[in-house]
Amino acid sequence: MSLYPSLEDMKVDQMGRAQAQMMSEAMRASQAAQALPASAPPPHSPYDPPPYPLHPTHPEQPKGELEILYPALDEYMGLEFTQDIIAANMPEYLPVAQRPPGTVAMPASVMPSGVVAPLSGMSAGLHRAQVTNAIREVTVCKDGEGKVGMRVKAINKGIFVCLVKKHSPAALAGLRFGDQVLQVQGVTVAGYTMEKVHDLLRKSPHNGIQLAVRDRPFERSVTLHKDSTGHIGFQFKDGEVTALVKDSSAARNGLLTDHHLLEVNGQNVVGLKDKDVSALISECGQVVTVTVMPGFVYKHMMKHMATALVKFMDHSIPDL
Amino acid sequence: MSLYPSLEDMKVDQMGRAQAQMMSEAMRASQAAQALPASAPPPHSPYDPPPYPLHPTHPEQPKGELEILYPALDEYMGLEFTQDIIAANMPEYLPVAQRPPGTVAMPASVMPSGVVAPLSGMSAGLHRAQVTNAIREVTVCKDGEGKVGMRVKAINKGIFVCLVKKHSPAALAGLRFGDQVLQVQGVTVAGYTMEKVHDLLRKSPHNGIQLAVRDRPFERSVTLHKDSTGHIGFQFKDGEVTALVKDSSAARNGLLTDHHLLEVNGQNVVGLKDKDVSALISECGQVVTVTVMPGFVYKHMMKHMATALVKFMDHSIPDL
Repeated sequence: MSLYPSLEDMKVDQMGRAQAQMMSEAMRASQAAQALPASAPPPHSPYDPPPYPLHPTHPEQPKGELEILYPALDEYMGLEFTQDIIAANMPEYLPVAQRPPGTVAMPASVMPSGVVAPLSGMSAGLHRAQVTNAIREVTVCKDGEGKVGMRVKAINKGIFVCLVKKHSPAALAGLRFGDQVLQVQGVTVAGYTMEKVHDLLRKSPHNGIQLAVRDRPFERSVTLHKDSTGHIGFQFKDGEVTALVKDSSAARNGLLTDHHLLEVNGQNVVGLKDKDVSALISECGQVVTVTVMPGFVYKHMMKHMATALVKFMDHSIPDL
Repeated sequence: MSLYPSLEDMKVDQMGRAQAQMMSEAMRASQAAQALPASAPPPHSPYDPPPYPLHPTHPEQPKGELEILYPALDEYMGLEFTQDIIAANMPEYLPVAQRPPGTVAMPASVMPSGVVAPLSGMSAGLHRAQVTNAIREVTVCKDGEGKVGMRVKAINKGIFVCLVKKHSPAALAGLRFGDQVLQVQGVTVAGYTMEKVHDLLRKSPHNGIQLAVRDRPFERSVTLHKDSTGHIGFQFKDGEVTALVKDSSAARNGLLTDHHLLEVNGQNVVGLKDKDVSALISECGQVVTVTVMPGFVYKHMMKHMATALVKFMDHSIPDL
């Protein structure tokens, strides 16, 4: 069973596999025909019909001999998945043994492995936006004013990062909106109040504050593909998805309404104006990965937060 | 930066790395000492002190020569991470080049890659419970009564599986509670009502019904480790986590209250009585991975569902 980041990836992979299977079957058939000694055809000449069936309307198609319903993908829309084409253009997709030395392997390390992504695999945004829900250790320090540069909020006995200040130690350490703080300096903070955690951070030493952090538990990312008019197919207001466009990539890939947009290609957009988010999306390439969170969790996290603070939110593009 | 499925995995990995680093530094120091020609020590004999520092109270520790604060991990709690020990006991953890032929590699394919799991990595439950949020294709048929064996519910313009009947085609195809249905027979179902999707399924052919499914978007899994008394540290009532035990694995790993227990080691427990779920958890080994969903989403999915139906929920253990 294959897993895909988006429905478009699934369809393209299935088309590619179907073509590869059809070609290998045609090859086998022609090899079997050659193996018959009595009717062995002469060696392959450039005028022979190719070993795979051609479309009935193709000029080289022998009339009345082969009747197939569909053209090969390469004729139909310029997609070709032969081993040679892959070797020439995408050596990173070859089996390990056949790769030329020095080929950079697909950056599979940041994707949940086993995920097949013929269309989105090279998108840096998809890799930046991966929500792993795994635990990592983060070391932060304090800035000149003695601040770490983050605020937290308690939800269901957990402590969540609800503000990361621009250029602060917390931003440099890669903390993100929505990360769950598990421990501060080895102290488990489950059940603590917001104030108690802020206090704990204030009383920490100036350098080498150790945090154990779980990657954004309430979030998930959805990979979308722009259509020919450059749209991915949803409306949003104040950062919240309000409607999906019928038959758009957003609808196909199961984006949900009443969810809040938090990241575009891994870049935090909390606190940005809607028109700035739209501009960010249109600047993206063909593949856009958005990170969302249920609206009610977002509202809880932003409750009582001063607009003046939100303005200073970190909007940098994370390192890969 | 390393990622871990649980805080316990993080601590053990850090201890292992610290020990490996200390030993390699001690090795380098002793090699540097041997490189000095004037004071070259005699060749290593079994009576020589080992090349790494021993605990001050260790019988072989030369008195007054080396003062270190902490014992080596192997003395302290029987943990030993030398290359030899790893080669003898856990060849799957060796670098690829050093592995004996025929070694089965760590089943990294089902884990988000890059995740380090020295304690939980061998737990089948962790692999079964991985929530990938990725898209897959599922083919189902109808049973003798013309039923697929699943019910759906519409949430925020998305369609979610809220019942998978025991031994039904849907259960055999690996559909799970919480999966999001994106397409039925190529028709995008975003914005459909529950009834419209049930109708679409009813009108589908008897065999080869194609579904495009996104893996459980509202869910996440939390890996916990039993303490010496066999507890993982949370209370639950009617399947909902109500309280966390202080300093327990559940508190450390950031399990949240007001979340509903859906799976234990990947096995669906929706519709089971609390005491049956407790029994399942105590039958598990040291590592227990629970899959949870925010309580409000769960309540919405189960609203208006007859208790008679819930009784027939699929509780089989999924294939890896």
